[in-house]
Amino acid sequence: MEYTFLRDLAIIIIFAKCFGIVARKLKAPSVVGEIIAGLLIGPSFLGLVDQSQFLVMMAEIGVILMMFSAGLETNLKELIKTGPVALAIACCGVFIPLAGGTLLYWGFYGMAPMGSHEFYKAIFIGVIMTATSVSITVQSLKEMGKLKGKVGTTILSAAIIDDVIGIIVLTFVIGFENPDSNPGQVVINTVLFFILAIVVGFVLYKIFNKLDKRYPHTRRIPILSVGLCFALAYVAEEYFGIADITGAYVAGIILCSVKDHDYIEEKADIASYMIFGPIFFTGIGLKTDFSTLDLSILLFSIGFVGVALITKIVGCGLMAKICKFSAHDSLKIGIGMMTRGEVALIVSQKGLSVGLLDPIYFTAVILLIIVSSISTPIMLKILYGKDKVPEEA
Amino acid sequence: MEYTFLRDLAIIIIFAKCFGIVARKLKAPSVVGEIIAGLLIGPSFLGLVDQSQFLVMMAEIGVILMMFSAGLETNLKELIKTGPVALAIACCGVFIPLAGGTLLYWGFYGMAPMGSHEFYKAIFIGVIMTATSVSITVQSLKEMGKLKGKVGTTILSAAIIDDVIGIIVLTFVIGFENPDSNPGQVVINTVLFFILAIVVGFVLYKIFNKLDKRYPHTRRIPILSVGLCFALAYVAEEYFGIADITGAYVAGIILCSVKDHDYIEEKADIASYMIFGPIFFTGIGLKTDFSTLDLSILLFSIGFVGVALITKIVGCGLMAKICKFSAHDSLKIGIGMMTRGEVALIVSQKGLSVGLLDPIYFTAVILLIIVSSISTPIMLKILYGKDKVPEEA
Repeated sequence: MEYTFLRDLAIIIIFAKCFGIVARKLKAPSVVGEIIAGLLIGPSFLGLVDQSQFLVMMAEIGVILMMFSAGLETNLKELIKTGPVALAIACCGVFIPLAGGTLLYWGFYGMAPMGSHEFYKAIFIGVIMTATSVSITVQSLKEMGKLKGKVGTTILSAAIIDDVIGIIVLTFVIGFENPDSNPGQVVINTVLFFILAIVVGFVLYKIFNKLDKRYPHTRRIPILSVGLCFALAYVAEEYFGIADITGAYVAGIILCSVKDHDYIEEKADIASYMIFGPIFFTGIGLKTDFSTLDLSILLFSIGFVGVALITKIVGCGLMAKICKFSAHDSLKIGIGMMTRGEVALIVSQKGLSVGLLDPIYFTAVILLIIVSSISTPIMLKILYGKDKVPEEA
Repeated sequence: MEYTFLRDLAIIIIFAKCFGIVARKLKAPSVVGEIIAGLLIGPSFLGLVDQSQFLVMMAEIGVILMMFSAGLETNLKELIKTGPVALAIACCGVFIPLAGGTLLYWGFYGMAPMGSHEFYKAIFIGVIMTATSVSITVQSLKEMGKLKGKVGTTILSAAIIDDVIGIIVLTFVIGFENPDSNPGQVVINTVLFFILAIVVGFVLYKIFNKLDKRYPHTRRIPILSVGLCFALAYVAEEYFGIADITGAYVAGIILCSVKDHDYIEEKADIASYMIFGPIFFTGIGLKTDFSTLDLSILLFSIGFVGVALITKIVGCGLMAKICKFSAHDSLKIGIGMMTRGEVALIVSQKGLSVGLLDPIYFTAVILLIIVSSISTPIMLKILYGKDKVPEEA
């Protein structure tokens, strides 16, 4: 037996955590530190770790667990209550960046004929821009005591719906791009999968709820949940041609109303951040290849960050204004929704694995995460600081 | 990318947990259920999962995490206090089964010349018998409220020392067996490793203690600990020719006096039981090959169980009697020490991977675990039931 994988694990975990801590100290998100750790230990710099099949699989498990957690965090009741307005904001906040990203790619590399591989590559740049990660916004609002306000609730709900729509768009784009598939089949497959998810999901929800009531807070609940998560990820990928992360996310949604959902999430989360998460984020760094980085890519990255931020602010803000928010509050919603994080990386990773994204564009995504994560809290603070009267509750 | 590994994970986790639950209902240890799950889904029966390189690596991570947890659970202070008596009992309880197992093998297959491969295979049967797993004893004593008594404390301490001696014996046997190595080198390597472990361990302990005092109960503590565990496992295996599980166990001992050691253990434990543990235990089942099972192996297994139980009772009980325990309490200590569990499997697994054990003997080990786990609680209950005066505290 080869034991190199133990060395890889030790190096990845220790470097990722240390750089993550440094990133946090510098007010950047810790994932940025982990990605930089990956760059450093990878072939471009220190050459301590080589990407291996084992690490790729471990990273995939990491993504699956993260998407499962994201699904588990969903509050279906809250979602339905704040529904219509949040839905409108989320839709606008998905489709305007989607269009913006596509146009940006066309602007740089010219428009490709519809249905061609290049065409889908352009759309994929837009898809990456759709995914909001509001954890930084949530943290900032919490610190200011504004999370439970109308703006805060709307941002949270819109962000969840944003995730769902983003996943659906991702599913369609990946499905359409496959040269063997015809668009009709993709739509049918996707619809079938979601019908299956609802039917089987309802049965599974009942089973887990019963299990949970009889044996609350026992190990079996999170363990069987994770088993279900892997099963749905596999079924989605293998039988419906849908991304495994979609399956994992759906598994999370199925279980998000089980009473012990936070208990499940805690355990899945620990399994993820102890080992798999760091492998995923350093893996991004390991794959990022600076040797092909040139001025054109650099310019594209700057354009990418600008378009991604502005389209979210405009998309969400405009719709908020239409939904009768004040101009000031609409701006807050737009700014709150503009942060990107793990999900953008997960989507990029998926694009890479199906051939819709070149690894060189990871630079743009990482830059977007850094810029948005740093600027959002600052801008929110300024906006809330200007409030003269307390915000409507 | 192949997605079969997701299916494997889903099947393993769900089957392992369900069979584990059934085993517990039948008063057998849950690991037995997980092993049977592995047998069932493996090539001999349903053929749902094939052993793959990925699963082997995941199982190895599982063992490493389990040994790390075992090290973390060590209470060094308690160990030093009850020291001499527990040490004497543990030593006797290691070497008598070691001799018994070796003699059993010789009795069945004849004695091989000293230093030959067959010779070490015989000794290895003894090595498997050395490892006590007192978790079931602890649970039984706890239920009867006898854990804090003199007998309980002695059993616990002896069991920990038993682990340490067992690991040392394992290290030497594996080292000696390697045809390229000379015995002197093995002794030197082992001594060097333990010196390194003490020196580096002391420095690391200081660092972790400082880190822990400044940032108690933060993620970084368990994450970096697990990183250290993998690093030591790798260094032991690669540079000293010592089993990786020894390295992981030592990493646990290094950190067992850090204030947050139970916090670290909790997190490592969750990571282990959510995914890696089930893969390890079902892996045992996947590997067990019944096609070569014949009468001779069956007889050997029965002999193995008998010798393993009797030698532990005699070894520990006799020494307890010499150390001035009453005959009745000595018997309790002997019975309390006779349970075998995960560690016996981990040692067997190690023997398999270095070629010192044929997979066919797993049957004997599994039988030993089942029989000892079921009979110990019953016998302890009977023995404590006979107590007329309350046990000395």
